[in-house]
Order: sequence, then structure tokens, then C-alpha cells
Amino acid sequence: MAKKVGNWTYQLDTEINIVSSATVSGPKEKKGPYGQYFDITYSEMTCGEKSFEKAEKKLMTEAVEKALKNNKLKTDDVDIFLAGDLLNQIITSSFTASDLSIPFLGLYGACSTFVEGLIVGSTLLEAGCGKRVVTATSSHYAAAERQFRFPTEYGGKPPGYSQHTVTGAGSTVLEANKSGPKITHFTVGKVLDKGIKDPYDMGSAMAPAAADTLKNILDDTQKSPEDFDLILTGDLGQVGGKILKDLLNEAGYFLGTNYVDCGVEIYGEDPSVNAGGSGCACSALMTLGYYLKQKQYKKIIVVATGALLSPTTFQQGEAVPSTAHGVIIENKEES
Amino acid sequence: MAKKVGNWTYQLDTEINIVSSATVSGPKEKKGPYGQYFDITYSEMTCGEKSFEKAEKKLMTEAVEKALKNNKLKTDDVDIFLAGDLLNQIITSSFTASDLSIPFLGLYGACSTFVEGLIVGSTLLEAGCGKRVVTATSSHYAAAERQFRFPTEYGGKPPGYSQHTVTGAGSTVLEANKSGPKITHFTVGKVLDKGIKDPYDMGSAMAPAAADTLKNILDDTQKSPEDFDLILTGDLGQVGGKILKDLLNEAGYFLGTNYVDCGVEIYGEDPSVNAGGSGCACSALMTLGYYLKQKQYKKIIVVATGALLSPTTFQQGEAVPSTAHGVIIENKEES
Repeated sequence: MAKKVGNWTYQLDTEINIVSSATVSGPKEKKGPYGQYFDITYSEMTCGEKSFEKAEKKLMTEAVEKALKNNKLKTDDVDIFLAGDLLNQIITSSFTASDLSIPFLGLYGACSTFVEGLIVGSTLLEAGCGKRVVTATSSHYAAAERQFRFPTEYGGKPPGYSQHTVTGAGSTVLEANKSGPKITHFTVGKVLDKGIKDPYDMGSAMAPAAADTLKNILDDTQKSPEDFDLILTGDLGQVGGKILKDLLNEAGYFLGTNYVDCGVEIYGEDPSVNAGGSGCACSALMTLGYYLKQKQYKKIIVVATGALLSPTTFQQGEAVPSTAHGVIIENKEES
Repeated sequence: MAKKVGNWTYQLDTEINIVSSATVSGPKEKKGPYGQYFDITYSEMTCGEKSFEKAEKKLMTEAVEKALKNNKLKTDDVDIFLAGDLLNQIITSSFTASDLSIPFLGLYGACSTFVEGLIVGSTLLEAGCGKRVVTATSSHYAAAERQFRFPTEYGGKPPGYSQHTVTGAGSTVLEANKSGPKITHFTVGKVLDKGIKDPYDMGSAMAPAAADTLKNILDDTQKSPEDFDLILTGDLGQVGGKILKDLLNEAGYFLGTNYVDCGVEIYGEDPSVNAGGSGCACSALMTLGYYLKQKQYKKIIVVATGALLSPTTFQQGEAVPSTAHGVIIENKEES
């Protein structure tokens, strides 16, 4: 049985391992500094499909298939599939689940979905519900932009604090008591609404949620930031990352050089992405594609941030509620 | 630890109880034959709010608050909140979670979300993650219609096989080893896509998924339909309900008078709803508001059906993938 530690964090009892994973990316991510680390990359936004939506489905389906193949598994070997994405009705995930024919639970946490999947997957295995759970998440720049903001063909120039939705997908295979990175703790985020009404300013909207979840993890486990080799946030970008540090400083927590935001990293110094990358795939590509493969990071916090932006309610004058889910991952050398 | 029985079903080990619940409905549901059984009912679609979206948030928030109050609980007594709804980015659930300030995991299963919440909630408690989980789901006719089909002001007449989205919300409080209806088994649905491309024909799209999940529950638990006092489906309506029976008959399973579809029941003989009710709130209102209060139904299967319809991909010529999640609930007299 898992147990609650402190007020908000759960410590898993069973050893839950990420036994394999895979990442698939679009062209901009391929050209970026981490492109070489992704399992499959595409040079064009349509990935050979007829629409951006079909392209996104291809990204997610291939991520799952590759994650299974990396561990010599077939879809029949999987008990439950957990997935979510940014498109309305998480249709990428539903179509992928239809193709895979694995029992499916749909999740929605916007860009926090990557960690939401790890949390729900870990608890299913801790509860004894199945031997093997697969998680996946995806996002696609062009499919997301035309749904959330404006069709890119309008040519509107986004402000400097905006972020660029990552085109890609990541998938994990979770099993109990095997080898591979081990999920030891998780913290479910609250939804915070700090009144940010600019749909381009995701970093400012999400930073308070990230600060809340990160503080909760540290307090509940009685650790300091320096007790971890790496503290990752999902997609706060340059703007949100700075706000997170300021908020934590004010509360007496100091993030050092072990703090990295996946959104700041994924495109390197590319000025076209403004404040950095965002989207469900951002934290998935960077965590699974790069950071978990770097064995110097033995104890990692991953806090995936999500701006729960609805174009309908935003047009009705409502703010953007945000959340952040966290996990602690131990990535020791295999014995 | 839970265990898998048969190929698709999980039997919970811990006794997971629905320790309290609440239902809130709109005007059409209030006027229907079951209106008297809902905890709170509204006589107008806006529920005193300025938009249908705000009205839906009020329905869900009040359902949760009433469910807590029914068991003398406060929001601080809840460890995790699980919710989902039909609006894009499940914004009703996110805003409700923001108001409640309970750690929140967002779910999406369209109209199957009611049972998805019970499944994820049961497994969290089985895993030892928290003492108390609250689930909620909602739908609102006017908010859903303008998002999924056409604004109702256009005055288009829906076809006779269409269904009417239920305006309402339902919430449950789940705890381990208490009293109240007991969730004993669950079956996670696969996503089936049988090529139905008419966004009004939800019943036909969902019936194969309902048949698959119901067959799996019966086979895995080695039971027949007559072993249950009640077999509920969520919102197949007149059309989908008939297809379900036909599909099961062909496979050698015969549903008798113990089979009821919540969508067929909720509005009684009202011809304005065509084939019946639908929406996330349909199965929640009928199961929580009425059937679990009827003590003659001691052993119940609830299969909540979901049409994972995306207006974007439907306009791109794709079909409507569908799913159905099932739970077995034992509702014995309190000892």
C-alpha cells in the first residue's frame, strides 16, 4: 500500500519502473539541440499525413509502438492504456486507443498530462490492477494553434512572452518490480487561478501552480532543492521559469543550477519560439528522450505544468486556471 | 491488492464504498419522472448564472458540496478530486477544482466519465493513496449543443434518432471499508470505431462498445445477465439500446427486464427528446439519484457509454470512436 507523506504527497510502496519509453518529434524539435536523442523524428509537420490532426495521431501511435518494441512487447501484453493530449475531446488519444485496441482511460491535464499518466499508471499497478500499463501524451504545433488561438495562416505575430507548442509524443511502459527508472513519490496538483487572462501568457499562469506543487513535494518529503540531482519543470518557458524562482525565493526555497525547464531547453537559443516550448509533448520528449538517459541524474523531480485554457471561457472573460503534477524518479544504475 | 479476473475485469480487494453522493439537475430533468429524486433542481437553464458554461460549473460545484455535506464532510477532508465533463478542456471540472482547492486529476471519457471516475477513484483507494476521493461529472444541454453541433438558436430540427444532452451533475464520495454501495469489480472499455459518421447518431456509435464491455464483465465474472438485479447502460437511448440487445442476442446473451438504459428513462415519454437523454450527467443522475436508492437492486452492473466525438475530426470525415466502462456495485442493506 502507498502511504501519504506530509499533506499532499504519496509514497509508493511497490517499486514502479519505467521499463521502456519512446519519443517521436516533429521537424523543429529534430533541428533543436536535443533532436538526436528522440527515437523517431519527422522533417515535415504533416508527418506524411493529410492533416495536422492525423499527423498528431501518427506521433502518438508510433511513440507507443516504439516504447513497446523497445521492450519486445506487443499491444496484447498491455493491460491498460492511459493517454491525453491537447486536442478537443483528446481525440488523438481516443483514435490511438482505437488503433491499439487496449482498454483505455482518457486523461486531461493539458501540458501536465505526461505526469498525470505516470501518477495514474503507478497507482493502478500499486493497486494490483494489471501487470503492465502504457502511458502516452502528444501535442502538435499547428493542430494546437488553430484550435486554441488563431490559424497560423493569419500570420499574426505572437508576443515575446508566448511559447511554441512542441510537435511530438512520448510514451512509457510501466511495470512493478522490474528495472529502469523508479517512480517513488507523486503529488497531485491543485488548480490555481491567479487571474491571468492573456491566452499567450501561459508561463505566468502556470508558475504559481508549479511553485505550489514543488514546495509541497519538498516539504512533504522533508528535502531541499539541493537534495535532488535535477528538478525539471514542464513548460514554464523563460517567463514562467523566472516567476517560479521568484515565488520560491520569497518562500525561502532556492533553486540552483540543478533546476531546468524543459520548455526553455528544447529549442535551445532559437529566437522564433519566443519564451520557449510548451505542449504536452514538451516535458515528455525532454524527460524520456534526454534526462532519464543521463545517468548522472539519480534523483529527479519532474513537475509537469498545465494551463487549462479554454478558448470558450477565455472569450467569456474568464482567466486561465492552471495546475502542476509532480513525481520523484530515482534513476540509479542497473544492478 | 486487486486482481484481474478473466481477460478484462478487475476485482477489488479492499471494500470501496460510495459513502455519499448527490445529484443536481436542470429544468427538463426536474420535470421528468425522476425529478423528485435529485437533491437540487433548477427551473431554468442558466441556474441564475450569466452563461450556460457558468451554469454547468454551478451544477458540478453544488453536486460536490452537497455530496460532502450529506456525509458531514468539508473539502479539506478530501484527498483527491476526480472529474470530467463534455466541454472542451473539461473546463467545468477545472474551474470546479479551482474553487474547491482539492488536488485534481482531470478525466475524459465523454459520457462514460461517471464510471471512469468510480474506477480511478476505487483504484486510488485500493492503492492506499488517500482516505477519501471525490468524483464528479456534469453536462449541460445548451453548452454542449453549441460546442458539438449547432447553436440551438439556428432552430435546426435534430433527427428522430438524436438524443438530448442532460443538464445536471452527479458527485460521489468514495472511502474504503465504510458503509454504502460497494464497488466490487470494474472493466475498462476499449475504444471501438465502427464507422458511424453522423454526429447525431450517438446510440449506434456507442452500442458496440457497450456490448463489448458488458460481455467482458459477464464472461470474466462467469455470470449471466439474470444474476444481476439491474443492468444499467448510460445513454444508448432507444436506438442504441435496441442495437445493444441485438448484438448481445447474436452473441448468445439475453437481456431481460432487468436491463434499463438511463437515457431511455430519464425523460419518460417526452417526445421532444427523440431517442432519449445523453451526456455525462445522464448515468450519474439516474444511478446516484434513483437506482442506488432503490434497495431491491442489490447487485448492479453500470456500463457508462461514451461517444468520443470531436467536431474537428468529424468535419474531416472521421467516424465517432466510442467506449464504455463498467462497474459492478453491490448495494446490500446496511448491517
